Amino acid sequence: MTQERKILYLPPTGLSEDILSPEAVSILENLGTVIWNKLDRNYTDDELLEMIPGAAVVVTSWGSPQITEEHVAAAGDLQIVGHAAGSVKTRLAPSGHERAIVLLSAADVIAESVAEYTLWAMLSGQRNLFPYEKVMKEERGWKPAHNWPGHSLYSKKVGLVSASMVGRRVIGLLKPFDCDVTVYDPYLSEEDAHLLDVRSVSLEDLFADSDIISVHAPITPETRKMITGAHFQSIRDGALFVHTARSWVLDQDALLAELQKNRFNAYIDVFEPEPLSPDHPIRDLDNVFLSPHVSGHTVENRMRLVEEIVRDIQRFFNNESLRLVVPYEKLKIMA
Amino acid sequence: MTQERKILYLPPTGLSEDILSPEAVSILENLGTVIWNKLDRNYTDDELLEMIPGAAVVVTSWGSPQITEEHVAAAGDLQIVGHAAGSVKTRLAPSGHERAIVLLSAADVIAESVAEYTLWAMLSGQRNLFPYEKVMKEERGWKPAHNWPGHSLYSKKVGLVSASMVGRRVIGLLKPFDCDVTVYDPYLSEEDAHLLDVRSVSLEDLFADSDIISVHAPITPETRKMITGAHFQSIRDGALFVHTARSWVLDQDALLAELQKNRFNAYIDVFEPEPLSPDHPIRDLDNVFLSPHVSGHTVENRMRLVEEIVRDIQRFFNNESLRLVVPYEKLKIMA
Repeated sequence: MTQERKILYLPPTGLSEDILSPEAVSILENLGTVIWNKLDRNYTDDELLEMIPGAAVVVTSWGSPQITEEHVAAAGDLQIVGHAAGSVKTRLAPSGHERAIVLLSAADVIAESVAEYTLWAMLSGQRNLFPYEKVMKEERGWKPAHNWPGHSLYSKKVGLVSASMVGRRVIGLLKPFDCDVTVYDPYLSEEDAHLLDVRSVSLEDLFADSDIISVHAPITPETRKMITGAHFQSIRDGALFVHTARSWVLDQDALLAELQKNRFNAYIDVFEPEPLSPDHPIRDLDNVFLSPHVSGHTVENRMRLVEEIVRDIQRFFNNESLRLVVPYEKLKIMA
Repeated sequence: MTQERKILYLPPTGLSEDILSPEAVSILENLGTVIWNKLDRNYTDDELLEMIPGAAVVVTSWGSPQITEEHVAAAGDLQIVGHAAGSVKTRLAPSGHERAIVLLSAADVIAESVAEYTLWAMLSGQRNLFPYEKVMKEERGWKPAHNWPGHSLYSKKVGLVSASMVGRRVIGLLKPFDCDVTVYDPYLSEEDAHLLDVRSVSLEDLFADSDIISVHAPITPETRKMITGAHFQSIRDGALFVHTARSWVLDQDALLAELQKNRFNAYIDVFEPEPLSPDHPIRDLDNVFLSPHVSGHTVENRMRLVEEIVRDIQRFFNNESLRLVVPYEKLKIMA
């Protein structure tokens, strides 16, 4: 019976080395007959169109062809699409959603790594330990603790822009620190805010009142440059700004201008464009820690991407409740 | 009535700038007549002997004179000693303990900052972000995520040496990361291990089986160099070793020798002797992050030291249960 279920696995071999665990292979092969992509490149739209008839399951990842109206029309048996990566906004054509094909995204798995980076950045920015290490290594010296004041994360006012998947995970990681967490998110209900034990505030109050600000907003038409120069100017002296979302959501030039005043510190992982241009003046700032869009990447987390998707596909066929399903009506407010 | 209660406050003015909050002053002055140390130096033993008669409360901190047999004999009204710092092993003479004078320590307040540093070090050591930042700043380049693999803290095997105050706080901070936490602590009961949701293991198994090892053992005769070369040699390749306790508890030369093999990474805040000598070869190692004994220092945490002690003194006189009391029988296994 399950042998007849046709499963298409689209990620190419090179990517699969990083994201496909032996456990995922085994689960998938128990669910049906898997057509593995044996090439080290993504299929073309036409190749997918040729192989999709009869498929019940399609597993995709970064670079896989989108599942278009034409694909959907040819895929009369398709029940579920599992995307072993983040954004699924255009992964499945509207006709697929209308036919109630289930769509899964591993965005919440990746969110775990972004949230870990965010907590690291908060602790790191508060503590200010790099100058001590520099003295220890480069000057072979010893400067006692009062030379560069370190600050606690414990009990600080933390403002999170968006209760997205990442934002919610950051709220979870902050729990033991007894912080006063506020959130700006027009889609967060009072009930959910209460369940998360956070206070909803305006974007203006969040920027003006927080010791630490972290951005987790998705790319949508309404988030485009929603964080402006006025917001950055209102950040408290000595505060910390952490950015791991996308530069889409803020005015990057205004951020730079405010950072150049050296009033507050920042940890920034995302830029526009990427790669960041070599002569970008943010590279000259001592009050900013820069990383090249790596917050979502850990070896272990990537190796779980297909596995977590495949476990949800297994749940689907067992009629169990799904963890990674993306409701069609939520796509418009998602990254 | 309370006006007649005599309170001695011993920390000198310079230290008080960092550790004495206005709130602490106000609480203390409501509890009795406070004799403040107006000098920028510690009192001598003789000065303390002169002023201690009639005192019900003595507040001490780093560098305050110890309360000796002679002081105790002269202090017939002394009910409570509050130490706004860590170690209280020799703070109060045995005759004071026999007379049931209550002893408070702010070690658990300081533990909060050490635990924050420890979690930072764990996240930092797993993620390996410094090479990326160096490329971003010094080379004005952009190296994508696979260049230096980052690792998760989530779900790792973490071994903690001692369920001390710091160790217990680290266990708390790790809760959201769903780690498999083991502890070596001969004084940890099975019941307490169960309550903390950790597994007790031998020191040997802890070193050999952990992805991350963090040392939180106190200075006692039995912990002297209890971590040996054999333990360090058994650490897994690619593991992370974090040390914020005291070098007393380990063989520092053996640690250096193993680190020089570049098999695993380490974050080390404590040394023997301190300051660390300028020519110490640990300063040359790229796989080690060094800081000069700052893990317990944050501006906010230090400013709470007297306040937390004074709140407990207030509880004492209100017959409420105390949070920072040190039982005499526990002194021998404490730092």
